[in-house]
Amino acid sequence: MGEFELLARIRERLPDPGERIRLGSGDDAAVTAPGGATATSVDSLVEGVHFRRDRASLRQIGHKALATALSDLAAMGAEPGEAYVALGIPQDLSEDECLELLDGMAALASATQTDLVGGDLTRATELFLAITVVGHAESPGAFVSRAGAHPGDVLVVTGEIGGSAAGLQALSDPNPTADFAFSYAYAYEKAKSAVGGLVRRQLEPVPRLGAGRALARCGATAMIDVSDGVGADAAHIAAASGVALRIEAEAVPLAPGAAEAMRAVGRDPWDLLSGGEDYELLVALPPSRLAEATAAVEEAEGVRLTPIGEVLAGSGVEVRLPGGRFLEPGGFDQLA
Amino acid sequence: MGEFELLARIRERLPDPGERIRLGSGDDAAVTAPGGATATSVDSLVEGVHFRRDRASLRQIGHKALATALSDLAAMGAEPGEAYVALGIPQDLSEDECLELLDGMAALASATQTDLVGGDLTRATELFLAITVVGHAESPGAFVSRAGAHPGDVLVVTGEIGGSAAGLQALSDPNPTADFAFSYAYAYEKAKSAVGGLVRRQLEPVPRLGAGRALARCGATAMIDVSDGVGADAAHIAAASGVALRIEAEAVPLAPGAAEAMRAVGRDPWDLLSGGEDYELLVALPPSRLAEATAAVEEAEGVRLTPIGEVLAGSGVEVRLPGGRFLEPGGFDQLA
Repeated sequence: MGEFELLARIRERLPDPGERIRLGSGDDAAVTAPGGATATSVDSLVEGVHFRRDRASLRQIGHKALATALSDLAAMGAEPGEAYVALGIPQDLSEDECLELLDGMAALASATQTDLVGGDLTRATELFLAITVVGHAESPGAFVSRAGAHPGDVLVVTGEIGGSAAGLQALSDPNPTADFAFSYAYAYEKAKSAVGGLVRRQLEPVPRLGAGRALARCGATAMIDVSDGVGADAAHIAAASGVALRIEAEAVPLAPGAAEAMRAVGRDPWDLLSGGEDYELLVALPPSRLAEATAAVEEAEGVRLTPIGEVLAGSGVEVRLPGGRFLEPGGFDQLA
Repeated sequence: MGEFELLARIRERLPDPGERIRLGSGDDAAVTAPGGATATSVDSLVEGVHFRRDRASLRQIGHKALATALSDLAAMGAEPGEAYVALGIPQDLSEDECLELLDGMAALASATQTDLVGGDLTRATELFLAITVVGHAESPGAFVSRAGAHPGDVLVVTGEIGGSAAGLQALSDPNPTADFAFSYAYAYEKAKSAVGGLVRRQLEPVPRLGAGRALARCGATAMIDVSDGVGADAAHIAAASGVALRIEAEAVPLAPGAAEAMRAVGRDPWDLLSGGEDYELLVALPPSRLAEATAAVEEAEGVRLTPIGEVLAGSGVEVRLPGGRFLEPGGFDQLA
């Protein structure tokens, strides 16, 4: 099957694009009437680096590729608009498998009201997906960059941290449920459900688009999505804003079972703060807006907003652990 | 060297972005204030499929990746705006080689007033470049799609065809200059210059951005860039516009030396019309605007506009060769 036939089959499966799209997939370029301002981000996932086909379904791989790209738009407080997909297709990926991958992407696109309007298919020796997403706002100033945090702001995080890293750990373990159940005298079914939840956080991350827009409306001064780990992403805000950040590790809400999954294999649960791939939002906010922002995030996304630290004059990031220790910079292997 | 250090070195080398860019590389997304309408296209180049590092310099690979993407904007009649680059970097590509690749891209970006404003770097086993380009116009209707050709329109092409395919042929030949000189009793220096010109058409294509905008202003009804070959790209216009196209092969202006290079290795020069990668523009135009369009393309780009056929009622494409023959659909190997 040639590129043109596959493209035609893909187009058939996509919903009709929204009114912003004036010319969709199939011409030299997609035409949009974007309005005030756009935020554009590119993200790529490569087999063997960001995912493995023996650990994730093709639907999950498609979902995650779009989710990680949309997460950057969430961190700008953008309304999601369009997505463009460059796909490198290895010989051992059939046409139907290609469509399965795109179905995972299309389901998330539909759920987030993102239009998949363009792309490029090419042969490759390894599977890769490079996704460009475009988000919208009324004016450039309505987006939230990483650069506006002020001393005195409170540092907050959406949802829960560490689930993705613990899920990655579980995926590397030949029998994570048994290890988990054995270590904690958990009932097997309960352990299975906890491990399953962690693995889903790793393989099916949710971009916090609703929370990002709510936080932008509630006066967020700086925002980033947690892709490299709470510590590393806090350092990006600190550097861009020219401030220091202090984080209390014990205040960081951990995903249920994440700490237990780490201890079950003899690892330090605090490593979860350098784990990354949570795709939650790390946000600086004036303390006067905290109550309003907490309610708005709960309303928009059904997740908690938790204060985990503060913005200070100075530079750098300090992550305080119990007992007067500090988090060492470090990270998890990103291979899932 | 990590991703962040390489990104910092890349950013240092980029010129300051234009006024449309409100937030450039380095945040979660680039922010632009786009105005009336945008045209967005994605193109990817993969090692071993679209280029070989033993046949093209890294500067040429970077140039060609951006050039092929911008060529789609030229075919819309768009003003080039922004480019976003996803780069898969294999282990045997050093940091300096990465920068060389990006220098090739940056030089073309600068020459075409395109802002390189975002990207994503990742490890990969093979080198790949996925480029998203965004072009602009005052309104969606100012862009030229493939779909507006009318019976009675004249079919024209910019510049010269076949140089890229002949250059690809020469790159596959261990000693193309000698073959060429021997077959045609050319002086060696003259043969060398002819072969060099063909190879440059293959490795350093020029997106016809000025010509595309001029043709849009002069009433082009349908436009496409010649990437798959004159015959195949004409078929895209015919299908999208719901018309038939008739092309006179002898009217198609061939690049100097292209036919000779084909005959030198015993190939049919008419195969050049299925060769592809010319990145010239194939355009339908009301005959009343032909003189004006010819002058405007000469003025904008310094290249000829040549009538090569006509738009008829019906469907499909007929490429008439001398002697009552017709061009068979086919194509060159795209591997350079």
